[in-house]
Amino acid sequence: MIILSIDSGIEKTGYAVFKDKRYLKSGLITTEKTLATEKRLEKIYNELKKIVRQYSADKIILEQLFFFKNQKTAIKVSQTQGIVLLLASQNNINVSYLTPLQIKQIITGYGRADKKAVQKMIKLEYKIDIKQDDEADAVACGLAFNLLRSCR
Amino acid sequence: MIILSIDSGIEKTGYAVFKDKRYLKSGLITTEKTLATEKRLEKIYNELKKIVRQYSADKIILEQLFFFKNQKTAIKVSQTQGIVLLLASQNNINVSYLTPLQIKQIITGYGRADKKAVQKMIKLEYKIDIKQDDEADAVACGLAFNLLRSCR
Repeated sequence: MIILSIDSGIEKTGYAVFKDKRYLKSGLITTEKTLATEKRLEKIYNELKKIVRQYSADKIILEQLFFFKNQKTAIKVSQTQGIVLLLASQNNINVSYLTPLQIKQIITGYGRADKKAVQKMIKLEYKIDIKQDDEADAVACGLAFNLLRSCR
Repeated sequence: MIILSIDSGIEKTGYAVFKDKRYLKSGLITTEKTLATEKRLEKIYNELKKIVRQYSADKIILEQLFFFKNQKTAIKVSQTQGIVLLLASQNNINVSYLTPLQIKQIITGYGRADKKAVQKMIKLEYKIDIKQDDEADAVACGLAFNLLRSCR
């Protein structure tokens, strides 16, 4: 089973690919602030489409967001999630969600851990050294999903 | 110029097509609550794609939303807007936004008018009789855009 975990954002979208429980690859899709929102969304969609096709992803894991500090962020993140969901449906890929709290809890043992603590655990426990926040978030999301699966 | 105005929502997406300032057609895309979000988004995307191609839309007008009463609505509406924006970009269609306040102000002369007042004005002034809220919102959005254009 190929799992693609995605941390979606209009400026930076992190992704990570796992084959069963093995980490294969991760990366970051960035878009220019000067581009119109629709062009940024299209770039993210096209890049993710390449990854979905290249790895024949079976499952997409997304962060489920309920609360946002500000509405502007909520709108932008949700617009990006919309195109990720569309891509999943177009390719018959099943979608699962984990909340940020679940991810932090599973990876670090503490639901309110900060991003740096998550990255430290990923490096220590899984030997995956990611410096970029959104890419690390996607890796953590995929790792957490795999850990949850093995408990069920 | 073909203008497509869209009132996006996961449950009901209203749309209206105008050729220059003439109303051509409007309609409503509905999706079943029982479907997964990604399937609902794909249905809306596919239906809108047909309309975009059939009428060779030159411009898409969207309601610009800043504030939501609840975050769940914000997330769902924004996810739907995301796929509309993607469709626009994929077809090189320029996107413009009007706020609900602008639309109501332009159509009824009162920014806080309710949906029924907007529908009444559309019927009285433009002889377009739409009973369904989200379809009427799309028609109002397109009409308001045309009125704004003629003032500039």
